[in-house]
Amino acid sequence: MYFIGERINGMFEDIALAIVNKDEKVIKDIVLKQTAVIVDALDINVGPSSQNSVSDMEWLVKTVRKFTDLPLVIDTTKFEVMKVGIELAGKGKGIINSVIPDLSNLDQYLDLAKNYGSKIIVLTMTSKGLPKTALERIELAAKGLTMLQEKGISVEDIFIDSIILPTNVAQDQPTEVLETISQIKMLSNPQCKTVLGLSNVSQKCPNRSLINRTFLTMALTKGLDAAILDVNDEDLINAAVTTELLLNKQIYCDNFLESYKKKYC
Amino acid sequence: MYFIGERINGMFEDIALAIVNKDEKVIKDIVLKQTAVIVDALDINVGPSSQNSVSDMEWLVKTVRKFTDLPLVIDTTKFEVMKVGIELAGKGKGIINSVIPDLSNLDQYLDLAKNYGSKIIVLTMTSKGLPKTALERIELAAKGLTMLQEKGISVEDIFIDSIILPTNVAQDQPTEVLETISQIKMLSNPQCKTVLGLSNVSQKCPNRSLINRTFLTMALTKGLDAAILDVNDEDLINAAVTTELLLNKQIYCDNFLESYKKKYC
Repeated sequence: MYFIGERINGMFEDIALAIVNKDEKVIKDIVLKQTAVIVDALDINVGPSSQNSVSDMEWLVKTVRKFTDLPLVIDTTKFEVMKVGIELAGKGKGIINSVIPDLSNLDQYLDLAKNYGSKIIVLTMTSKGLPKTALERIELAAKGLTMLQEKGISVEDIFIDSIILPTNVAQDQPTEVLETISQIKMLSNPQCKTVLGLSNVSQKCPNRSLINRTFLTMALTKGLDAAILDVNDEDLINAAVTTELLLNKQIYCDNFLESYKKKYC
Repeated sequence: MYFIGERINGMFEDIALAIVNKDEKVIKDIVLKQTAVIVDALDINVGPSSQNSVSDMEWLVKTVRKFTDLPLVIDTTKFEVMKVGIELAGKGKGIINSVIPDLSNLDQYLDLAKNYGSKIIVLTMTSKGLPKTALERIELAAKGLTMLQEKGISVEDIFIDSIILPTNVAQDQPTEVLETISQIKMLSNPQCKTVLGLSNVSQKCPNRSLINRTFLTMALTKGLDAAILDVNDEDLINAAVTTELLLNKQIYCDNFLESYKKKYC
C-alpha cells in the first residue's frame, strides 16, 4: 500500500504553533520522524487556525522540502493555497488533496495537475455534503472519474477518497465505506486508486490505535490502495504489512515485517 | 462472531499427556481458562497420538463436561470417535467437526446429527484432497449444502469450513479462502454459516498472534461467522470485537471491549 504520513497538519497543536512561530526545528523533527519509517508521501495541511494560509503553506512546504524529497499531499480546500503548495512541492512531486466533482473551479485544479504532473484525490461528496450510502458515493466516484478522464487526467493518477467518519458518531458508515471501496475497483480498467484519511474513523474514541489498525486491515481487504495515517504507529504499520502478506502482495519470508521495512528505510 | 476455543486438542503436548495419564486437573485448568473469557463452544480433539481414540474421546468429553455446559465441537475423522463424543456432549450440545461431501458413510453422520440435534461442519474438500482455488471450494460447498439439505439438515445448522493452510507454505491460499467465504454467503437464503480453524494460517510462522488476528479481521470482513481459535489471546479477541464493531454488528460505546466481554463472562 501507499503510506501517507499525517503529522504535518495544523490540526495538531505542535504544528499549528510551529507555523505561527515559523519554528523550523519542530517541522524538521516531525518530518524526520516520519521519513525514518515506512512512508511514501507526506500530507501537508496548514490547519484551520491559519490566518494567512497561502503564506503559511508557502513556508510549510519550503521548510518540509529542506528535509525530504518525498511526494507531498497538499491538503486544503482553497485553490490559492493548493496552487502554492503544488508549485513548491515540485513537478511530479505533489498530490492534490482534494477536489469534489461539482467544484465550480474544477478546471483550475485540473490545469494545475496537468502543469505539475500531480495526482488528484477526488472526494465522494458534493458541495451539499457527504452522502450516507455506498451507492450514492459510488455514483459520485463514477461521475468524478468520468469527468476527470474527459478532461485529460489519466485514471491511474486519480485517487478516490470515500471519506470515513468517526465510528462513535456514525456507526453505520464503516460498512458503507468498505462497500464503496470494493465497488470503486470495478468502475474502470485500469482501476483508479482508493485512499482514506484513516485516523478519522477513531476520532474521540478510546483505543484509537486498535480501531485504526482494524479498519485499515478491513479496508485493505476490500481493495484500499493508500491511506493518510500515523506512520509512526508501529502496531498499525505491522497490521498493514501483515494484511499485504495475507493478500499475497508481498512474498513470505520469516522476517517479513523487517524485510518490508527495509525496502523503505 | 461465534468463538470456539481450540485448546482441548491432543496436538498440544499438555493435552496429549493428560489423556495418557487421565489427568483431570490439566483438562480442568484449560477448560476453566477458556471459559473465563469470551467463548461460545470448545473444540475437543484427542489428537493424532491417541492409541485408543474412542475411549480417549469418552474420557475427554466426560471430563470436560464436569467443568462446562458449553457446546462441544467434536473434532475427529473417525465415525466411532465422533459418535461417542456427540452422544456424551448431549442433545443440542454437540457440533460434528467434520464431514466431507463425498464421505462414503455420510448418512451415518447425518443420522447422528438428527438424533442429537447437532450442527455439522462441512469441509470444502474431498477424499482426494483440498482444491487450490476458491471456485472449486465453492462448488464443493454448494454440493455439500445441497446434499445435506436434501437429507433433511437445515441450512442454519451447517457450517462450511473452507480450510486455511499455513501462509508460509501456501501463500496464495488466504485470498482463495477469503473469496470462498464471501461467495458461500451467496449460495443460499437463509445463509449457511462459515467457520475456519484459524491458527493454521500461521503454523510455524513467527508473529503468530499478529498473523492470526490480521487474518481473522480479514475473514470477518468477508463474512466469516465462526472460528476455532485461541480464545485466551487477548489481542486476537480485541481485534475480533473491534471488527464486529466496525461491521456495525454491535452497538458502539466508549468501553465497547469491556461491554462485549461482559456479555459473555
